[in-house]
Formats: sequence, structure tokens, C-alpha cells
Amino acid sequence: MFFKQFYDDNLSQASYLIGCQRTGEAMIIDPIRDLTKYIEVADNEGFAITHAAETHIHADFASGIRDVANKIHANIYVSGEGEDELSYKNMPPQTHFVKHQDTIYVGNIKLEVLHTPGHTPESISLLLTDEGGGSNIPMGLFSGDFIFVGDIGRPDLLEKAVQMKGSTEIGAKQMYQSINNIKNLPDYVQIWPGHGAGSPCGKALGSIPTSTLGYEKISNWAFNATDEATFIETLISNQPEPPHHFAQMKKINQFGTKLYQPYIVSPSLNHDRIAFDLRNKEAFHGGHKQRTINIPYNKNFINQIGWYLDYDKDIDLIGDKATVEHATNTLQLIGFDSVAGYRLPKSEIQTQSICSADMTGEEEYVLDVRNDEEWNQSHLEQAVHISHGKLLNESIPFDKNDKIYVHCQSGVRSSIAVGILEYKGFTNVVNVREGYQNLSID
Amino acid sequence: MFFKQFYDDNLSQASYLIGCQRTGEAMIIDPIRDLTKYIEVADNEGFAITHAAETHIHADFASGIRDVANKIHANIYVSGEGEDELSYKNMPPQTHFVKHQDTIYVGNIKLEVLHTPGHTPESISLLLTDEGGGSNIPMGLFSGDFIFVGDIGRPDLLEKAVQMKGSTEIGAKQMYQSINNIKNLPDYVQIWPGHGAGSPCGKALGSIPTSTLGYEKISNWAFNATDEATFIETLISNQPEPPHHFAQMKKINQFGTKLYQPYIVSPSLNHDRIAFDLRNKEAFHGGHKQRTINIPYNKNFINQIGWYLDYDKDIDLIGDKATVEHATNTLQLIGFDSVAGYRLPKSEIQTQSICSADMTGEEEYVLDVRNDEEWNQSHLEQAVHISHGKLLNESIPFDKNDKIYVHCQSGVRSSIAVGILEYKGFTNVVNVREGYQNLSID
Amino acid sequence: MFFKQFYDDNLSQASYLIGCQRTGEAMIIDPIRDLTKYIEVADNEGFAITHAAETHIHADFASGIRDVANKIHANIYVSGEGEDELSYKNMPPQTHFVKHQDTIYVGNIKLEVLHTPGHTPESISLLLTDEGGGSNIPMGLFSGDFIFVGDIGRPDLLEKAVQMKGSTEIGAKQMYQSINNIKNLPDYVQIWPGHGAGSPCGKALGSIPTSTLGYEKISNWAFNATDEATFIETLISNQPEPPHHFAQMKKINQFGTKLYQPYIVSPSLNHDRIAFDLRNKEAFHGGHKQRTINIPYNKNFINQIGWYLDYDKDIDLIGDKATVEHATNTLQLIGFDSVAGYRLPKSEIQTQSICSADMTGEEEYVLDVRNDEEWNQSHLEQAVHISHGKLLNESIPFDKNDKIYVHCQSGVRSSIAVGILEYKGFTNVVNVREGYQNLSID
Amino acid sequence: MFFKQFYDDNLSQASYLIGCQRTGEAMIIDPIRDLTKYIEVADNEGFAITHAAETHIHADFASGIRDVANKIHANIYVSGEGEDELSYKNMPPQTHFVKHQDTIYVGNIKLEVLHTPGHTPESISLLLTDEGGGSNIPMGLFSGDFIFVGDIGRPDLLEKAVQMKGSTEIGAKQMYQSINNIKNLPDYVQIWPGHGAGSPCGKALGSIPTSTLGYEKISNWAFNATDEATFIETLISNQPEPPHHFAQMKKINQFGTKLYQPYIVSPSLNHDRIAFDLRNKEAFHGGHKQRTINIPYNKNFINQIGWYLDYDKDIDLIGDKATVEHATNTLQLIGFDSVAGYRLPKSEIQTQSICSADMTGEEEYVLDVRNDEEWNQSHLEQAVHISHGKLLNESIPFDKNDKIYVHCQSGVRSSIAVGILEYKGFTNVVNVREGYQNLSID
Repeated sequence: MFFKQFYDDNLSQASYLIGCQRTGEAMIIDPIRDLTKYIEVADNEGFAITHAAETHIHADFASGIRDVANKIHANIYVSGEGEDELSYKNMPPQTHFVKHQDTIYVGNIKLEVLHTPGHTPESISLLLTDEGGGSNIPMGLFSGDFIFVGDIGRPDLLEKAVQMKGSTEIGAKQMYQSINNIKNLPDYVQIWPGHGAGSPCGKALGSIPTSTLGYEKISNWAFNATDEATFIETLISNQPEPPHHFAQMKKINQFGTKLYQPYIVSPSLNHDRIAFDLRNKEAFHGGHKQRTINIPYNKNFINQIGWYLDYDKDIDLIGDKATVEHATNTLQLIGFDSVAGYRLPKSEIQTQSICSADMTGEEEYVLDVRNDEEWNQSHLEQAVHISHGKLLNESIPFDKNDKIYVHCQSGVRSSIAVGILEYKGFTNVVNVREGYQNLSID
Repeated sequence: MFFKQFYDDNLSQASYLIGCQRTGEAMIIDPIRDLTKYIEVADNEGFAITHAAETHIHADFASGIRDVANKIHANIYVSGEGEDELSYKNMPPQTHFVKHQDTIYVGNIKLEVLHTPGHTPESISLLLTDEGGGSNIPMGLFSGDFIFVGDIGRPDLLEKAVQMKGSTEIGAKQMYQSINNIKNLPDYVQIWPGHGAGSPCGKALGSIPTSTLGYEKISNWAFNATDEATFIETLISNQPEPPHHFAQMKKINQFGTKLYQPYIVSPSLNHDRIAFDLRNKEAFHGGHKQRTINIPYNKNFINQIGWYLDYDKDIDLIGDKATVEHATNTLQLIGFDSVAGYRLPKSEIQTQSICSADMTGEEEYVLDVRNDEEWNQSHLEQAVHISHGKLLNESIPFDKNDKIYVHCQSGVRSSIAVGILEYKGFTNVVNVREGYQNLSID
Repeated sequence: MFFKQFYDDNLSQASYLIGCQRTGEAMIIDPIRDLTKYIEVADNEGFAITHAAETHIHADFASGIRDVANKIHANIYVSGEGEDELSYKNMPPQTHFVKHQDTIYVGNIKLEVLHTPGHTPESISLLLTDEGGGSNIPMGLFSGDFIFVGDIGRPDLLEKAVQMKGSTEIGAKQMYQSINNIKNLPDYVQIWPGHGAGSPCGKALGSIPTSTLGYEKISNWAFNATDEATFIETLISNQPEPPHHFAQMKKINQFGTKLYQPYIVSPSLNHDRIAFDLRNKEAFHGGHKQRTINIPYNKNFINQIGWYLDYDKDIDLIGDKATVEHATNTLQLIGFDSVAGYRLPKSEIQTQSICSADMTGEEEYVLDVRNDEEWNQSHLEQAVHISHGKLLNESIPFDKNDKIYVHCQSGVRSSIAVGILEYKGFTNVVNVREGYQNLSID
Repeated sequence: MFFKQFYDDNLSQASYLIGCQRTGEAMIIDPIRDLTKYIEVADNEGFAITHAAETHIHADFASGIRDVANKIHANIYVSGEGEDELSYKNMPPQTHFVKHQDTIYVGNIKLEVLHTPGHTPESISLLLTDEGGGSNIPMGLFSGDFIFVGDIGRPDLLEKAVQMKGSTEIGAKQMYQSINNIKNLPDYVQIWPGHGAGSPCGKALGSIPTSTLGYEKISNWAFNATDEATFIETLISNQPEPPHHFAQMKKINQFGTKLYQPYIVSPSLNHDRIAFDLRNKEAFHGGHKQRTINIPYNKNFINQIGWYLDYDKDIDLIGDKATVEHATNTLQLIGFDSVAGYRLPKSEIQTQSICSADMTGEEEYVLDVRNDEEWNQSHLEQAVHISHGKLLNESIPFDKNDKIYVHCQSGVRSSIAVGILEYKGFTNVVNVREGYQNLSID
């Protein structure tokens, strides 16, 4: 048997290719839209991709499962569990809807379907036995967003991202049951999860790509909760707010979107479009083109730009060609195919900034872009509060020439906010560099 | 003044960027569709591209002049000379139709329009004076397909590619006049032509990028013809046959086509499409996937594949990723945007071949794929003649299992023909390696 | 804790980077010479590489352990077990020699040294406990060439590659003991091996990157041998012959070699050097430059070229630039730093070849390049036998113009042999394409 | 005949490849050290490089003429004119020393040697006649640093860079004579110069790659000087100061240096070396690693870093990998082969800065890094003057903690100076952003 994990750092997402050497058949599990790497590896190893499966309807990236069916003409396997209203629609003819205890064979590799709801109602896991390798014991579990290394999937995305009232509570209870059920599998079973550290599909994912069930039974909090109520309380609390694009992801993964077609970004000479500068914040603040917004291209790129993307509008990206190329590809992974052009960085203006420590508390116009929770805990008296994710669309109650001091908690989000304010025409914006946490106003 | 020649080896085509440092304005002359390099150089040198011009309606590649207008919003300048029926249609609003002795300024650079028909009726040349550099004498002539280094433009393309009866004769006479007119310019004027060696827009272009008028007056045959009749006779004779795509080029350059959008080719898993193998012929014949056609990606690529492209059908390319990428881009330069996928070379079958010297003359099934002229001069008695450019669309009068000996003159075209025959289902094709010229049959 | 496996396809080798997020310290386990990827990942994750360890003196690739000490100034940990004569020499001052049950801390990550001889006398494994993650149970075992997925390390390399008489038997016994000892660890412990499928350090390694001890206990033959004698018999039999470069590897890894310095290969214009053509065999035989040797750049590259490299002589590589670049880097991984130039493939001659099925048995000059075992089983009566690995250095008992039919078992090795014969001046060599196995001579 | 200009933007330098299609021979004129492009083009066009020539001993880049002889074994042609003391030493056996009116043939291409001293005493030009193309009139002149487009070579480098007293005056007189001599050639002769705009080998080179003699006779100041004295005066005045590395260039080009071997830069973990940050100045000042020096990698890179390179010491470069790769290659072109490592930019500190307009004139510690000429014209009263090129080696008369205001004329050189001061341990440096020219101190 052949096994390979593909880990996408931008999505903190893991997908898998498994292949049966005896028959030359291979399966992708939880494919992203860009199938190139799967096909190249399969080709190189002498496999034909004949199958693909996904564990659930993803909320954080655009699934490639339909691309596999439509482009490669492979059989695809998705969950037939859960309520109809929330289930897969418009699936291609190659689709098989699988249920608990169904069995899929990829050559001589056996995959047993386990319904493991909690993260979403239809979530399944796939338990692999390498029969071609002469084994009759399970080797590992493709656990999707059910079990992660050191954590489990959050149950609140449907409620928060697509306003399914009450679904959090239901999911949490299902998760408790799913965890209990899985304990019966042997300790030596490997855990092959759908995400790693940094994913917003959980809150404390580890930086280790795979684990074992035995290790998780001992080390993972979810296997060690004293009772259901405690379990639910722990699971639900302190989950980060999902970025705007999650709603879009749920929609396109449930209903489908256009097929993936990668493209090459040309130089842009139309400077009317909204433009995102991909450099680090120091370079941006050192000198940037006025009215452009800084979203550094690093591991948080998707989680940050997700708040500001309008899927109906073209954007420009600013950066060197290679970075723009990568960022464009990354955006396609969340289904955004509309990067119209790239521009090289230009040093037009330098951002005004102030050390948090130098704030006197007497500043007249202060904009606090932290989230509601942070604001509610404490804030400057004169501050206006608009959460960073809403800045682009809400009106800002200042005059265009007011000297506006913008702060967040630590300096990352205010750094983005500066560009948004400039984009909206404010001309006198001051970045409070180290954020609220470093104010020394008494 | 800034000046840069851009030479595309695949098209044997020269385009130019000139810029006025005093005003920051720049102009492209005879742009190809892919504007990236012009924009990058302009950006790097601190210019904005504010103008573009083209010397005539090109027959051999897809013009980028409309892209400049639509994407960069620059003013574009095209010939307003010649007959209406053959003139530019559907031009964008930024278009200026210029006539003989009109003047265009790019900042302080003066360009004087000279009507120089012959290659086509509307052909113009542009005479540059660097007034910004303090000069009032002409520096050089953008001569398009009027004067090349060592040759001049052929007048027969309209007749051969788009069936304009009688246009060759008319063009040749106009060319004689145009050459006479230009002799008045000073010897020191540089000649900046539209094509170099290998271009099918002439028959004997030199491998030197630019020349001077004084040098051409002495060295170029066209300036030294004894009389008009000799001139016309020399000009018309022995011009190579234009590939099929020339008709398509004339059409899209006269009437417009869709804007250029570069794309990335994904691995192909659909093996029904026609597929062209980009490797050299030895590698292809050593081992290739059955029913694929070998068009090596070298300087003759466009001239060869031009015969076989159907602009309404997708194709696959076979080769390593980098070569496929280049070939895809090259095909876009002749307006072909339909490379659906790429495949890595596979060694499925080896081509049967025979040394020309080993042919006995007794072979029953012989296919001669040379052109009419070559065939008419002499050929094997039993041979069937179908010119290589027609193989794809004409029916081949052999049975699928007949042992067919395919030859051309030197071995290049038969090498392509082998793949076409395989593609059409013939299973027993033998390549006569060194062609007709090396037969030793008495 | 951070964990990442680095898998090199050319060496079938796994190395690892682990890092403690609390202290920012990181360790490489079994580094190759090219440290770039480790450093880039560490840098990207915010770690400083402060430690490195290796499990044993490798025989199949050039270790980077000394580079870590000399370039990064990290502490390095190597085995202090085994006999002095075979142990590490000339180690840098940062070296720690560790013994059974010693403990190494990388920040809050605990690594316990286990002496697990068998593959080599000094072999150690490292048992990891993620104390920083709040755990006191072992997570996994860096097992080096002790336990692989589905197999264990071979004990015969010292004897075969560096002529240590009797060491095979001793190693096999030690291995039996080491396997017995490790059984006490829990089932959920992950196995992180030093090699994967294709490595000549074992004979049946699986294509799965990691495993668990519990799974191996049930599935791996080595945990299920009925007694010591059977274990040893199974372990020793049918091990593939190690390529020539293994002796060189043992030497440089025990005594050290020069520091790694990557370089860029320039075009070669000196055609006297031995030259290896990296293309697939069909492309090579379709047309190649005379007197060059075909070693396709695929997963077997190292195992094949290893037989023919003279570490004291420069070589040229033939192929496209990107492939040459990769091959050059791959050769540096086995300590060969002497690629003097590259050349583009040229089609000078086509290899003569014959289908195995067309051999009559009457051919006068036949060269059999299979190994001794294959030869001894059966061979053509008139054949001369020289094992492929010895062709370059042994004299070939034919005249330069004899028509020599060269065959191996399946066609891969004869394909290499053709080039070697040409290189040695034989001018009339015929490749028996499908090898001995497809002869139909009765 | 084949002709191609190679223009290196970093050196503002032109070299040439010419080839005779009839014989397959080719010649490089004024090669740089990295021969890759010449060889690739020659290979692609079917030429063997059999000859190389250079016009004079270059002072601004490392010549590749010896590499051609030693690596390609081609015949090389250098000037045998001028004084022995200043002439080529240690030349390889393939060297031909040529004199005025000698003739070189590259296949059927004739090159006539013209001694054209002035820039240097041994300078020659090469007049090309394409006899293979059937011509007996000259096509063009490889004019080296004799005639540029719009300017001529400066005669003062020997005196300024290598302290040859009185050589400027002698050179200027020779140049006057050389210009007079060349006037006899026909107007249509092309001028193929050794440098373009930005080169410090002249003061007003045009941005047009080639010219014609007729055009230069009318437009170039040097052909239109009223008398010798005026000519000399104009030629000598206002020549820019040559960077430090010029002396090194003269030395290695006269006496030879080691052969060119390109290399790959690895990540650096040794932060003791001097490190140059290649980003633009705004990004650097926005956030950089303390004690690193900012030399942006743009067209002025060589002219700027040339002041600070110590050829006996390793350096690190800071930037993204691709930029470091380019910069490393560029440094090799001036013979500097000691880039030890690269580092990714880190935002450790932000540069303190002040608008020139905000300077009060009361600042206590002011460092003026302009050149002597600028300083002598006017300066701030309290300022200390150390020309930027001397900052690294001269002692700075301030305390390490003094608040030092650093300025140059426009902000470019002070931006470099900030890093040098940090490197030397000064901790409180303020960059006067727009320089002396924008001070508004009355």
C-alpha cells in the first residue's frame, strides 16, 4: 500500500493519497481544488486515481471532490448521513453516498465508513485496513474534522457561519457520543486528521501531522472529560470567530461551484480596484501606495483576507511576482478566482504611527478594531468600536481629515485597519503600533 | 530617449518599446498579445505606456494592439491607409487611424508616418526623431514588414492565405514604389524591422536584429534590382507556402478576438483529445504514447503546428512541465487559447523506421507527404501523394493494417506524418528516416 | 511540540525536525548534507536549530551531522556504543557521544537513547516524550535503520560493503535481541523510521511513511519469527547487492568529508569527460551522443549510478537544465561534488536493438551483464558474463567492431551497458530489449 | 551572419556574440565571467564558440576573456597596443595580441583591428565586414569604451582608480585623435558600444543600445568640439567618482583571477558577518535586523556596494531567495565570490528618521556623508564630514549613544550610512530623509 499526506500550510489542511500497488488504483481523501499534486504523485508512483472521498462538507476551504469526478472521472464517495436539508446537492453522476458501516474498496485496500457526527451532522471517518498488504487489522483512521491531534472538531460553525440556530448544542452532544464510540478501536490505530495547528476548525490543534488512537485516549482532553456537560462546556467555549468566507465555503461545498482553472496574473494598470499588499507590515508601513490594504502573505493570510473578500469583485495583489503567484493560488483554494492583476510595491506614503506607550489617553479620535469580547472587557473611554472584519462595509463616524488613532490588541489587526481607512478616504490615520495591551494610560 | 527591441524567437518577430524620459511616456510598436514584458520594462524604467502603434495587419501572429487599448487604456495608432474592405474593424475607442505624413508624439519623441504599401496595402512605417534628445534628424525607421535586414516583405500572403485574387501582383508593384521612395532618407538612419531570420513573412531574412538604410541600399537585393519587372519576378518567386493558421491570424487581427488571459495547464487525464508531443523526433520515435503527434518545440514549432491546429478544438500537450508551459504561451501568441491539459511522455510504442538507403522501390504502400512542387518534380511510381498539411483532414486511401512507408524530402515532415497516421488508426506505419533525397533506388 | 518528516525520494530516506515551542529549540534527526530545508522550516516556524542527532553511521548516503555542528554550531549527538574501531572519528567539538538510557532534552522534549544494534553495532533509537505538551508517556520512536514499516534493517552491509568478515552473523543475532527488547514499549508508540520503500538498507520496506509499534508487532515478520535461527535465516537471505558507493559512504560518514557547498553546473564544452545521459532509456536509444552512458534520473538513479562513479574524477551530465540541477544536488547527497558541466542531449546515433523474441541463439558475441546469481541459474551457452557493475573497469573480451548482443534480465541494465561499451570504444553493440526473461530460444 | 547583443543591466554593459553560419564558428566580444548565455545561444543556433576578443582592460567588471580560453579552449584576442607596464599579464596560451590594422577572421566574418586609445592606452575597436554574407563594406564597429551612444569613454579612470599620475591628460589627447581618425568611416556603419546608460565609464550615455556613425557624427558632442582644448575640458569635467572596486577590477583584469564557478547560497546562521539588506530603503527602514546595511538591489547596486566590499571577507545577503540569488550572481560579475549565506529579512528595529523640513539647525550631532565637492559648496556649520564611501573604514568622531543626524544630498546615501553606523555600534542614529537639498534652515 502507498500512503501520502499532503499538507497545505495556508489552509492548515491535510489531504491524503492512498494507492493499491496490486491493482494500480488510488484514492484521494478530502481533496482541495488544485488536483495537480495528487495527479503528479499518482502518475509518478504508477497509480491511476480511480476514487476520491471526503469526510464532510468543509467550511474553511473549497472542496475539490467535484473536480475529481468531473475532470478525472473517478468515483467519488461522500456522506449520505445527516439531514437532507444540509446534505450535498448537485453532485456529479459518479457520486456514491455512503452510510455508517458501508465498505469501500480501493483495489485491495478496505475502507470502512464510520458515521462520526459532531463537527457537522453528516461527518464520517474512514477506517483503513491494508488487505493487499496481507493484513486484517485496521491500520489507521481518516478522521476528518472529528479527531485532530490533541483536539476535536468544533460544533458551532453551522450556527456561527450559516446561522443554523441551536446546531451548536446538537453537534456537541453528537460529538460526545462519537468520541465514546471510537474508543473501542485498538490503541495502535493511526489517526490521520483533516487539519493541523492554526486551523480555525478547532482551537488547540497540535503541530504533529498524525497520532495514534492510544496516544489520544491518554493525552487528548476530549477523551478525558468527566461527564457530558463538562465535555460540552469545554468544547464550546473560547472558539475563535469564523472569518466571513466560511459562509461562502459552506455554500459552494454543499451546492458546487465552477471547476478549478488556474491562471496567470498579469501586471495591473487599473488602479481603481481594491488592492491588497502582501508584504510584512513593517515593509508596508515603511512605504506603500496610498489606499491599499496590507494583508501579509503568511500562514494567517486566508484567515485574515477571508474577512475582506467580496466574491463578486475583482482584486489586485501587490508584491513580487512569486508571492503574488502563490497568493493567487491560495485564494483559489477558497474558491476565489478573481485576482485581476498584480502590482509591484511602490513607496508613496509612510504610515504614521505611535508607540502604544506614547499614547496619552487625551487623543480625540480613537478607533478600536478589536472584537466584541475584547471591547467588552475594557476599552478607552473616547474610543469608537468597529470590529476589524466590519470596517470595509460599515460607515466610519469620523471626518476624512480627522487624526484617527487606530488600535487593536497587539498591532496586527490595526495594521490592516490602517489600509482600509486609507482605502475609504481617511487621510490622517495613526497606527498604535503595539496595541491596547501595551498602553500605559492610567 | 529609451529604446528596447523585444525579439520573440518562436515568431521570429520584433516589437519595440520607446520612452521619453522627460515626460515618462512610452509607446509599444507592433505588440504581441502578452504585454507582460513591455509593462515590466516600462515599470522598471519609470515609464507609463501611453501609446501603441502597429505597422500593418499581421498575418503570422495575433496582435496585441487591442489589448493595449482595452487593458492599459493607452492611445493606439493603426494605419488608415489602404482599401476599406481590408482595413481594421471593431477597433476600441482609443484608436487613431493615421495616414501618410501624419505625426505622432510620444512625449518629445516624434514619429512620422510613412505609407509603405507592398507587403499589405495598408502597411505603414514610422520614422523616429529624438527631439527630446535635442536632435532634429531622424534616428531610425520602424519598418514593419516593409524592409527587413537583407530582404523585404512578401506581397503574396493575402492571395495565398485569404484568397484575394490578384493581390500579389498589385502588392509587388506597390513595393517597388515604396522602396524607391525610401531611398531619399539618409544612410545613417537605422532600420528596425518587424521580423528576423526564419519568419515566413519573407524568404531570406538575416540573423542580425537591426541594420541601417545606407547598408541596405548597398547590400539588400531589393534596392539593387535593375528594373521593375526583375524586381517583381525576384520578389514573387520561391516564397514558402503559408501555414494554415495565417488565414485565422488575418481574421482575428482585422476583426479582433478575445482579450489575452494566460492560464496554467493542468495534468490531463482525458486521453481522447488530440495530443502533440513536444520532444525532439528521436525521443518521440524511441518511445511514445500511441496515436499522438510529434511536433518538436523548437523554432519551427509555430510554422509546423500551424498546419494542424483546429481553433475550435481543445488539445493536449506532451512534454515536461516547463516545455508545455512555454509551448502553451507560444500558442497563445497565435491566438490559440485551448490547451486543455498536459501529459508526461510515456514509452508505449517505438516507431518503425527504415533508412532511406534500405528502400528497395518494391514497397507496396508508399505515402509521399511532400508539397506539390516537390511531388511534381519527381516521385516514386507507386506512391500516393497527400501534402503533410492536409493529412489530418483528408482521407488516406490505405487499410488500417497496411504496412505504409511514409516519406517526405528530408525526414522532418514524415516524422510528423507518422503520428497523424497513428492518430487516424493506422497501425503499421514505417518512417523513411532520411526522406526522398536519400533514396538510392535506381 | 512541532514535528516534521523530510523524505528524500532519491535516497528513500527520512529525516526529521522536531521543535519545542516553549523554548524555540529544535533538533534534526539523521540530517542529510543539504541543510537548507531544515533551516527554512525552522526559520519559518520560529525555531533555532540547537541540536542534531543521528541514529547510526549511514552506509547509503552522506551524513550532514558534521555540517550541522560546523555551520550551525548546534550540539550534535551520536552513538557512543559499539566497538571503537567502527566508531565515529574526527568529530567536531560540539559532539556528544550518547549511550543506552542517556537522556537528551530539546527544550521540553525528552529523548531517551535506546541502544538497538543489528543493522550496525552502534545503532541507537530515540524514544520521544513530549513533556512540553504536558505528557509523560512516549509518543514515538526514531528507529533509524532498526525498524522500518514492515521490515527491519539488514545486518550484512559491513561485511558486503567494507569486508568486515563475520559481521553479518553477529549483527543478525543482535537484531534478534533488539527486537525482543523493544516489544515492551506500548502499542500506541509511533514508529518513525530512517528509510522507506526502495531503500537498499532492507529488502521489503513499505510505502507508508510511519507506523505504530502495535501494528508492527502484529504485521511485521520480524516480530513474528518462531525462533532465533528462523529469524536470522529470513533476515539474511535475498538481500540485494549493495552498489559500489556504499563503501565510500561508510568511509566518509565514519571519518568525515568536506563541508557541503552547493554549486551551479555550467554548460560543458569539454567532451572528454565521462558523461551520463539522464533521459529515459527510450529517448536515449532513439538518439544520443556517441560514447555517453544512460542512467535515467528516476528513483533508481542513485542505486544505478552508484556502481559507476569514480569519486576522484569529474563527470558531465546530459539533460535539460532542470534535471541536471536536480541530479547534481542528488549526487551531492552521496558526497559526490564533481559534476563539471552539463550538455543538452544530441541525437548523434540511434542504438541498435533487437526484440528478445527475435534472438535466434546463433548470435556469435553475446554479453550477459546480469549478476552472478542470475548467471548461475541459467545462461546462453556462448555468452560472456560480466556483471553490469564491473563493466566500466574490467576488460571486455571482444574486438571493437564485433557485433555484440548485450542482455540483462529485463532490459534495464543492458540499456546502461550499451553506453558503457560505446564509451569503451565498441562500435557495433546491439541491445536485447526485453532481456533474458523474454528469450524464446529452445 | 548571426549577431546578438547581451546587455547586463547591473553592469550597464554590452557584450556580443557573432557567428558565421557557413562555418559554424562564433566569437564573443567583451565577455563577462558568466559564459552560460553565450554558450546556450551558440548551442541553440548551432555554433561552436571558437573565438573571443576584448576591446580593452575593463575597470568596472571582471572580464571573462580568460574563462573563454581556459574553459572553452577558444582562441582569444586582446590588444597588443599600449605600454607594456599596463598591458595584459599571465594570459593563457590561446591568446593572440593584436595591433592596429590586424585582421581576425571568424569563419567568413572579417574583423579589422583599429587602435583607438583614450579611455585606456591599449583600447582597440573592431570593424566588422560580413564577407560570408557577400559584402565587402563594413557593417559595424565594436567600439568598446571608445564611442558610446551619445558620449565617449572617460580617460581619467587609471588616474583615479589606480593612481597613474598624469594619465588623464594623456588619455584625453589620445581620445581627441581617435575620434578624428574614425570620422573617415562611412555614415551607415553601426556603432556597437561596450556600455549603456548608467555606466560609470562615461557621464552621459544614452539609453539606446546601438547607433550609427553618421548619427553620432551629427549628434554626439565629441564629434562636434570646436578644438582640442575644449574637447579635453568637456571630456574631463564632471566625471563621477569611481567606486572602490574599480581598482580591484583593473588588477584582476590585467593579471587574472580565479576561474568563474557559480554557487548556491545557503541559509546563514552565523550572524557575525557583515550583512547587506537588498530590499528597498522604505522596507528596510520600516523594520530591519540591527547592525545590517541596506544596499537595495536595483540598477545602482554595483555602484553602491562597490564602495563597501572587502574582497578578503565573506558577507551575508538579506532578502528573499530569488533576489539573493540574483545579487550573488551580480557580485560574481565583479569578481566577488564570497557570499557566505543568506538571511530572510527580520523586523527588529525601525529606523529613526526626520523630514529634512523638520530639521531646526540646532541638532548637536550631524554627520554629512556627501562627497567633497558637495561639502565644499555648502554645509551645516556643526556637521562632521565623512564621505559615504569612507564610513566603513574611518573612525566616526561620536559616542555610541549620541543622537546622530545623518544626511546626504537627497536621502539615498544617508539611507546606507544609517546601517553602517548601526554596524559600527552607534545606537541612536536618525536618518534625514530627503537630504540636504530639502533642508529649510535659514
